[in-house]
Amino acid sequence: PEQATEVPPLGFAVAQLAGVYILAENRDGLVVVDMHAAHERITYEKLKQSYADRDLVRQPLLVPETISVAESEANLVEHSGAALEQLGLVVDRSGPTTLTVREVPALLRNADVESLLRDVLADMSESGRSHRVDDASDDFLATMACHHSVRANRLLTIDEMNALLREMENTERADQCNHGRPTWTTITMSELDRLFLRGR
Amino acid sequence: PEQATEVPPLGFAVAQLAGVYILAENRDGLVVVDMHAAHERITYEKLKQSYADRDLVRQPLLVPETISVAESEANLVEHSGAALEQLGLVVDRSGPTTLTVREVPALLRNADVESLLRDVLADMSESGRSHRVDDASDDFLATMACHHSVRANRLLTIDEMNALLREMENTERADQCNHGRPTWTTITMSELDRLFLRGR
Repeated sequence: PEQATEVPPLGFAVAQLAGVYILAENRDGLVVVDMHAAHERITYEKLKQSYADRDLVRQPLLVPETISVAESEANLVEHSGAALEQLGLVVDRSGPTTLTVREVPALLRNADVESLLRDVLADMSESGRSHRVDDASDDFLATMACHHSVRANRLLTIDEMNALLREMENTERADQCNHGRPTWTTITMSELDRLFLRGR
Repeated sequence: PEQATEVPPLGFAVAQLAGVYILAENRDGLVVVDMHAAHERITYEKLKQSYADRDLVRQPLLVPETISVAESEANLVEHSGAALEQLGLVVDRSGPTTLTVREVPALLRNADVESLLRDVLADMSESGRSHRVDDASDDFLATMACHHSVRANRLLTIDEMNALLREMENTERADQCNHGRPTWTTITMSELDRLFLRGR
């Protein structure tokens, strides 16, 4: 039937639940989306694609951010400037234990810059400074994606929710978050009907 | 906490699903209400209370409705006028196989009068004409309640949904429909979280 083909796979948003889940209606029934996980995944895939295309657009911060770190971390940054730049981060060492962040990936312009950098530094320390960034880039990008994603309790409008659903449909591997958990699930009408002992 | 006490047991409506279920959010998570079953139950309890109070308000039909029936059914009505009146139905025999409905319970003024009467006649035939209406009145009232209830695919506004939730909270035995099935159920946040393998 014509009407059925108009409903996209993840359906249309109907509400947000507890600031955590998006509820949508599709042909099968109720779609429940973990909005943080879904958004994180979309951002990650975008970052990965841009990184692969050497097209990770950077955006200068209006006010460069100065961050105190351990000396070992400052050393790490000094020796990894080019690698960080490939990841979209322009960071200078501005003192023995001070870093200054000047540019971030445009995709992450709304992120908390300090915690973003700290997490990337933690990743880099873990993977070892001698490790080529390319090998670990997926981890770094995943870490960065996490900082951009919709946080719990952010209220979304129905339009924003639908935009996220459409993006999920157009993103590869959007079914799983970066940690391998599902980003959405369906509670079908027949599962609901069973809860109500319908049709018995 | 103060805020928590403000959420009513069945929560606040957030959406309608597939024209069948009301979705609401309460302190536990997602509330799913079978809107037809819930409304039927509320109507039934109201009819029962009015019947017990001898206060079943009738409403004259603007245009009395004439219905063709079997002769046995017409006989039944002729001998049960008073009993039917107690149920809120004023029905005359207007021919050997013809009945005319003049008044219906005010609560059921929007019901399909013909199918309402046919179902009540079926109940009466089944329970036997000699049977006192009082003994079977609950069955009759349940049958009648069914005719008034919100049908599937009737779109409700959020306000109408909330009104129904509040009525459910104020109706005895509103947890079960007239057939003993649940009228609502909860999918808790932890059940949802489990679907998303959260917290593992």
